[in-house]
Amino acid sequence: MEAINRHAIKWIYEAGQVIREAMSQPLTIDTKSNRNDLVTSMDRNIEQFFAERIRATYSDHLIYGEEGYGDEVTSLQGIVWLIDPIDGTMNFVHQKQHFCISIGIYKDGIGEIGLIYDVVADILYKAMRGKGAYKNDKRLPNLTKEQALEDSLIGMNHHWLCDNRIADKAAMQQLVKTVRGTRTYGSAALEFAYVSEGILDGYMALGLSGWDVAAGMVLVSEVGGMTTDIDGSTVDLLSKNAILVCNSAVRTRLMEEFIKPGRKME
Amino acid sequence: MEAINRHAIKWIYEAGQVIREAMSQPLTIDTKSNRNDLVTSMDRNIEQFFAERIRATYSDHLIYGEEGYGDEVTSLQGIVWLIDPIDGTMNFVHQKQHFCISIGIYKDGIGEIGLIYDVVADILYKAMRGKGAYKNDKRLPNLTKEQALEDSLIGMNHHWLCDNRIADKAAMQQLVKTVRGTRTYGSAALEFAYVSEGILDGYMALGLSGWDVAAGMVLVSEVGGMTTDIDGSTVDLLSKNAILVCNSAVRTRLMEEFIKPGRKME
Repeated sequence: MEAINRHAIKWIYEAGQVIREAMSQPLTIDTKSNRNDLVTSMDRNIEQFFAERIRATYSDHLIYGEEGYGDEVTSLQGIVWLIDPIDGTMNFVHQKQHFCISIGIYKDGIGEIGLIYDVVADILYKAMRGKGAYKNDKRLPNLTKEQALEDSLIGMNHHWLCDNRIADKAAMQQLVKTVRGTRTYGSAALEFAYVSEGILDGYMALGLSGWDVAAGMVLVSEVGGMTTDIDGSTVDLLSKNAILVCNSAVRTRLMEEFIKPGRKME
Repeated sequence: MEAINRHAIKWIYEAGQVIREAMSQPLTIDTKSNRNDLVTSMDRNIEQFFAERIRATYSDHLIYGEEGYGDEVTSLQGIVWLIDPIDGTMNFVHQKQHFCISIGIYKDGIGEIGLIYDVVADILYKAMRGKGAYKNDKRLPNLTKEQALEDSLIGMNHHWLCDNRIADKAAMQQLVKTVRGTRTYGSAALEFAYVSEGILDGYMALGLSGWDVAAGMVLVSEVGGMTTDIDGSTVDLLSKNAILVCNSAVRTRLMEEFIKPGRKME
């Protein structure tokens, strides 16, 4: 795993350099399933960049990626790289910042390596299972175990407060009025990184795929935080999930008072 | 005004240095009107820092500030400095980033100078009336005049989607579903700066004071954007306002389709 980690970090910095150099050029932007589901030529190029290097170096590893250069992954047996080449594509397109490369490396379903690289800020969040989490070279301390929900900052987007298939919007309104503040940054992986850093106390999101969360789950786990499906069960990395990631101090109240009572059965 | 601008920029950089040096020390945090209305010793110290320098150099100028070191300002006649020493205090406390110093300088009610300094990122947004807006030394281009609301990113907090005294939450839900994305950064002045930079297409906020918006209004005006009260009228800098700031491309639809129809009469 140490060798795999070194390769992954080397490639992530190289890919970041490719992106930074290309950002002055015009983008080709497509939409995937709808007008707001953007994908750029850069998303594709960067996933291909990783796929080529992984296959050349680790021919027995599998790749589970957003843009189609990976494998048909139906189980997490063996070593699987879960890759979002540009997490926060909307930010990439509109802001040319606030996006990241997210790579989680799992062995037999267990998260071994998590890497989240904020390309423009040049900040790499990194973790290996059992070895702690880092923001560049600074070790991140364990998350607080004592924090009132009323004093917390929670990352969530605005769709939680609209009609949706998962949560009760009235309970979500109550949550917004209960916490100290809410934030929306538009990159799931970066919001995981912010939870691991303790600058968000929790983050909840609808409709995330395994490549959005795989790296963040390793990071957050290394500082004592927890990620589950919104109903409290284990995240299935091979399907879409509504998730909650947070420190242990706010988890019970978030779940018991706000999420579960409004939870819709599908 | 050129001399005033030079002084203001010099002091804002000095204040930024004071803040960065002090950030490793423990904070004294009070709450103002409620648990979530934070004010730190730093907010007070920095306002006092500016008040002392302004009074020593420009004894006839007035100071309109959040923390009480300014003057009792009842009109905008003469030269008035509208100062938020730390805009985004919650971010300052929880994140140690994503906050700024905001200074607007107005003469007889007209915005002459706007300065918004992202202290940790070391980015100064600056504008003088008629002379353009800058992000550090880079001139900001005029905002787009052609942009579909469906392709826009809008800054707003989650309270727009809760019961509130200003807007209809059903109309706001429809807005969230119409735009490409929404963001919440927790610093009004920075969100004005992002509008001026074109990385947000609009920003709407409840309950802002003059010191929150004075600098941003000058900045945004210099790139062709517009700030009004949410009912379309001129912002009264001496009272609390719900405001809309945006580029001209999205303004009409935001107002006519989403804000006005749901507008509550008080």
